[in-house]
Amino acid sequence: SRTLLDRKSEKRTNLKWLSAKQSHPDTVYILFSDLSPLVTLTGQQPEVRLCRLNYLHIKDYIANPDNFILVFLGVELGTKKECINIMIREDTKEEDEDEDGLVAWFALGINAICAEQFKQRHEDCYFLHPPMPALLQLKEKEAGVVAQARSVLAWHSRYKFCPTCGSATKIEEGGYKRVCLKEDCPSLQGVHNTSYPRVDPVVIMQVVHPDGNKCLLGRQKRFPPGMFTCLAGFVEPGETIEDAVRREVEEESGVKVGSVQYISCQPWPMPSSLMIGCLAVAMSTEIKVDKNEIDDARWFTKEQMAECIRSHLCINGSKMTF
Amino acid sequence: SRTLLDRKSEKRTNLKWLSAKQSHPDTVYILFSDLSPLVTLTGQQPEVRLCRLNYLHIKDYIANPDNFILVFLGVELGTKKECINIMIREDTKEEDEDEDGLVAWFALGINAICAEQFKQRHEDCYFLHPPMPALLQLKEKEAGVVAQARSVLAWHSRYKFCPTCGSATKIEEGGYKRVCLKEDCPSLQGVHNTSYPRVDPVVIMQVVHPDGNKCLLGRQKRFPPGMFTCLAGFVEPGETIEDAVRREVEEESGVKVGSVQYISCQPWPMPSSLMIGCLAVAMSTEIKVDKNEIDDARWFTKEQMAECIRSHLCINGSKMTF
Ligand SMILES: Nc1ncnc2c1ncn2[C@@H]1O[C@H](COP(=O)(O)O)[C@@H](O)[C@H]1O
Ligand SMILES: Nc1ncnc2c1ncn2[C@@H]1O[C@H](COP(=O)(O)O)[C@@H](O)[C@H]1O
Repeated sequence: SRTLLDRKSEKRTNLKWLSAKQSHPDTVYILFSDLSPLVTLTGQQPEVRLCRLNYLHIKDYIANPDNFILVFLGVELGTKKECINIMIREDTKEEDEDEDGLVAWFALGINAICAEQFKQRHEDCYFLHPPMPALLQLKEKEAGVVAQARSVLAWHSRYKFCPTCGSATKIEEGGYKRVCLKEDCPSLQGVHNTSYPRVDPVVIMQVVHPDGNKCLLGRQKRFPPGMFTCLAGFVEPGETIEDAVRREVEEESGVKVGSVQYISCQPWPMPSSLMIGCLAVAMSTEIKVDKNEIDDARWFTKEQMAECIRSHLCINGSKMTF
Repeated sequence: SRTLLDRKSEKRTNLKWLSAKQSHPDTVYILFSDLSPLVTLTGQQPEVRLCRLNYLHIKDYIANPDNFILVFLGVELGTKKECINIMIREDTKEEDEDEDGLVAWFALGINAICAEQFKQRHEDCYFLHPPMPALLQLKEKEAGVVAQARSVLAWHSRYKFCPTCGSATKIEEGGYKRVCLKEDCPSLQGVHNTSYPRVDPVVIMQVVHPDGNKCLLGRQKRFPPGMFTCLAGFVEPGETIEDAVRREVEEESGVKVGSVQYISCQPWPMPSSLMIGCLAVAMSTEIKVDKNEIDDARWFTKEQMAECIRSHLCINGSKMTF
């Protein structure tokens, strides 16, 4: 399977189940401070791994509601434990829901003071900070869990107030909903995206030269010298993925794009983007860089790209340095 | 071209250009009341068309800043007018930017009182309300402009306050940015999505039976009797498009999906979704409907689908009634 967890979204409204799982000994907690996950180095060739904590590790920090934000992430796939309890307890009609054998995962965002206390008690662990490029050290499955947790925690840190009326909000549905506390707020009538986490679709595109032998890369002003990447940009309201690719390429580089093909996508929790990867075929070749948007854009040959990959200059699939 | 307008996002920060275009006689205004566009019926076989107003029509309404929200939509593609002015005026160094020949479009959202006044003066026009299914009557290109305008106006109506600190905000960048008015608000440090319009990615999928001859449709509780559509749902934080398809299908119908293929996408301004259409191949066939999520789900044969299309029971590509 591609993912570590089944999100089990139907449990988000089951308060009894959530609260039983919170103190269950099998439950896994991953800890965040300032949106950075707690990790440790393990193995002979040391690898960065998420610290999987349990209730006893974090009990003290969740005693005070001001200290933390809790998000239910899901249950482990394919590790349903034997649960004899449900079978033998005939004295109670109520199903003992926390003994369903499912291993629940929660993300716990704690404040700076708690984080400091935690580090003093657990010297083998540290918070991956700054998040980039450190997050790229995580293995794919753990990176997926961190993407989910980090996006939702980032949403909580920026969307504390109701955007419709400016009032305070309360958290519901296992951390997936914020509800306005003002009784007559219009956000409480019907379903509105103001209550739910944001996911920002971004297009990132490999633009191929009409001759089929070169591709277009650009550099942001904030990049270190010599670093180029695929062009990218946010999808705007009322725009298709394909039109967003054409608009962004033309805005940033002046190159006109014809056909666009979706290739694949990847959540990018910086803080909550969905990167949508496309292949785009250029219809023009002249580059006119918009200096307000990017620093430079150039055509690179297949040979240059291959050379760069050979000499390990790539940080990840989409970035390369010359 | 697929679209009517070039968004010309670089003009959003050019206040001088924007203000000159606002009162330019060629500028096109489209009007909204309560997120519904002003339309009229034209032609011998009456067709619904957007009312394209000009400055004189709307001048009175924008005199008072409390009355309206203004969004710069872009400039008309392929209708650059001759502009002799730039050439002959040698007495001024300053380029006469509003005489660049570009025809600017703005969306103007007005309050209920202004809308009432407007309707009394222009009896041949009306606001398309409720928006669905009325919006489906618009031609593709105009529907695209309405999608853009409606999404941004809906964002303004719901995101008036800073979600980070709860303070009031001001509008910038031609209607594409809201900036917190509290001087020390963390949303003013760096770039944050709190300032920009929301686009919510949604997956909508045709799930094909393993035998290749049936597909899975479901009905929401709010649907009229007999109406079935493709399953759909919001992409969650930290999730790929493909995983969102698998999760939603399993949550709603209990059917397990294997391979998923992106087909195409469409902005859906209800109020600001991006519908991402996928083809999904089922790996299991038993249906277990989650009654909290939907009302019913069933496999339909190719013959049933074809019959439905023949007898005009489709409202649009994704909806069908039995
Ligand atoms: N951005 C969002 N906007 C509205 N609903 C959302 C959003 N994200 C998740 N949801 C969930 O999706 C449900 C509405 O889905 P639907 O009935 O398909 O419009 C809501 O009740 C929420 O639980
Ligand atoms: N949801 C969004 N979050 C952040 N920036 C956005 C968003 N939508 C549009 N933008 C624009 O994209 C720019 C940042 O793009 P980038 O440098 O690629 O991160 C900002 O300066 C905004 O003008």
